[in-house]
Amino acid sequence: MSDFGRLSLNSATTKKWTLAEAVAGCVRAGIPAIGPWRDRVAEAGLENAARMIKDAGLRVSSLCRGGFLTAADAPGQAAAMADNRAAILEAVALDTTELFLVVGGLAPGEKDVIAARARVADRLAELVPFAVDHGVRLVLEPLHPMYAADRALISTLGQALDLAAPYDTSAVGVAVDTFHVWWDPQLRAQIERAGRENRIASYQVCDFNLPIAADALLSRGMMGDGVIDFATIGAWVRDAGYTGDIEVEIFNQDIWDSPGDEVLATMKERYAELVLPYA
Amino acid sequence: MSDFGRLSLNSATTKKWTLAEAVAGCVRAGIPAIGPWRDRVAEAGLENAARMIKDAGLRVSSLCRGGFLTAADAPGQAAAMADNRAAILEAVALDTTELFLVVGGLAPGEKDVIAARARVADRLAELVPFAVDHGVRLVLEPLHPMYAADRALISTLGQALDLAAPYDTSAVGVAVDTFHVWWDPQLRAQIERAGRENRIASYQVCDFNLPIAADALLSRGMMGDGVIDFATIGAWVRDAGYTGDIEVEIFNQDIWDSPGDEVLATMKERYAELVLPYA
Repeated sequence: MSDFGRLSLNSATTKKWTLAEAVAGCVRAGIPAIGPWRDRVAEAGLENAARMIKDAGLRVSSLCRGGFLTAADAPGQAAAMADNRAAILEAVALDTTELFLVVGGLAPGEKDVIAARARVADRLAELVPFAVDHGVRLVLEPLHPMYAADRALISTLGQALDLAAPYDTSAVGVAVDTFHVWWDPQLRAQIERAGRENRIASYQVCDFNLPIAADALLSRGMMGDGVIDFATIGAWVRDAGYTGDIEVEIFNQDIWDSPGDEVLATMKERYAELVLPYA
Repeated sequence: MSDFGRLSLNSATTKKWTLAEAVAGCVRAGIPAIGPWRDRVAEAGLENAARMIKDAGLRVSSLCRGGFLTAADAPGQAAAMADNRAAILEAVALDTTELFLVVGGLAPGEKDVIAARARVADRLAELVPFAVDHGVRLVLEPLHPMYAADRALISTLGQALDLAAPYDTSAVGVAVDTFHVWWDPQLRAQIERAGRENRIASYQVCDFNLPIAADALLSRGMMGDGVIDFATIGAWVRDAGYTGDIEVEIFNQDIWDSPGDEVLATMKERYAELVLPYA
């Protein structure tokens, strides 16, 4: 029997399910953890969401997501800070220490990546004390460079670690999402570094499908359907000392159009075959 | 009057033109150089192509392209070497010293990027002596990470420089193509390094359009239409000591569907406005 004790369903994988449906699906499938997106939590209501997850006996592996910190104007920056403080409080209510941050891309019309990245660092500095006060870790997620302009100007694990460096490891961590980082020629060295620096807050798995989907956001695939070598990357993450949850987060129209229970069954099979042996 | 003395038309920008049409278009537009693709050269016939470019008074800034060095089997490797040797001879015939290499992605079914990259290094080592004998420089082009799996497992300028390091600077160079590298957090440092190491063999300009095109290969845009800061990157390339040709290479369906003379006129305007002041 495979041990699914570290497996977590990110709620984006079963996009058509409400949070209640996702929780029930995890229970039926014997998946012990869930990583909800904030929109699904808001639909259910925060207190209700927290209660239903707890009552089901599930663990919350992370909350997706805060971030979008690159507004260039004061009102936009204030709104981003307010939203991220709200996300931190939601993480507390959901009993997870891990809040993902997708840091944001260029401001509208902007082309200055250096200035935009500096604004990320500035907002992070402002946000950290509030996160620390609430016992929540801000998890910097490097996104694939194809999303640099419009979603996240952190494109590599090394860059995320540089940004995290000024802060306590309990305040700022990094995510290793196979889809986003598999191509990086420095990946092994930076995962080792993340381990040494005690920064790995999450390991997310999904595949990189080819051809890239017409909507480039939806090229994430079920493990085994794409080009990613989960054995190698998984062993690096293991050897870096990571023992936490392993979340499956897939944006993929075909998967979204499939019945959720079938998706979870496939996810367990692929996890047992491709991920677990190296975790 | 703007000085178009360093401007070169990569023939992919006017995909519907034959080589003869592209040469005539450059002459009409006062563009002094061309970077032909090998398929257009083959259509025209190598000797004829070389003669028509020379007779028109144009310079050949580079030849696109050799590479695809990642075959895992001996016959595939032999075929790749034969094709690259042929490309080197074509570069000689066309009187250019610069042969672009798009190094190739994973072999069919393969997931081992480390092994595939090692094969690139092995084939490069085999190819360099032939290139040196013919006075041709192999130009390693890092491609955007979205093409890592199927086109080029060299994804960053730093990685290209590492691969070039064992060889004389006249044997192996690197290309800086704004589309492929604009997102790289190490870009400034690696362009500076490329200058110090005397490796910059080509500067190619085009923009990164959003949203990413349904066919991800076709997201290249006319300078000014996307997110790239040509002033900043151009100044880095200039300060690194690059004084060679500046090629415009755009794969974009709308541009391909436009009359070639209009494309060249727009290209000159944008070059004069966005690229030349920083070159």
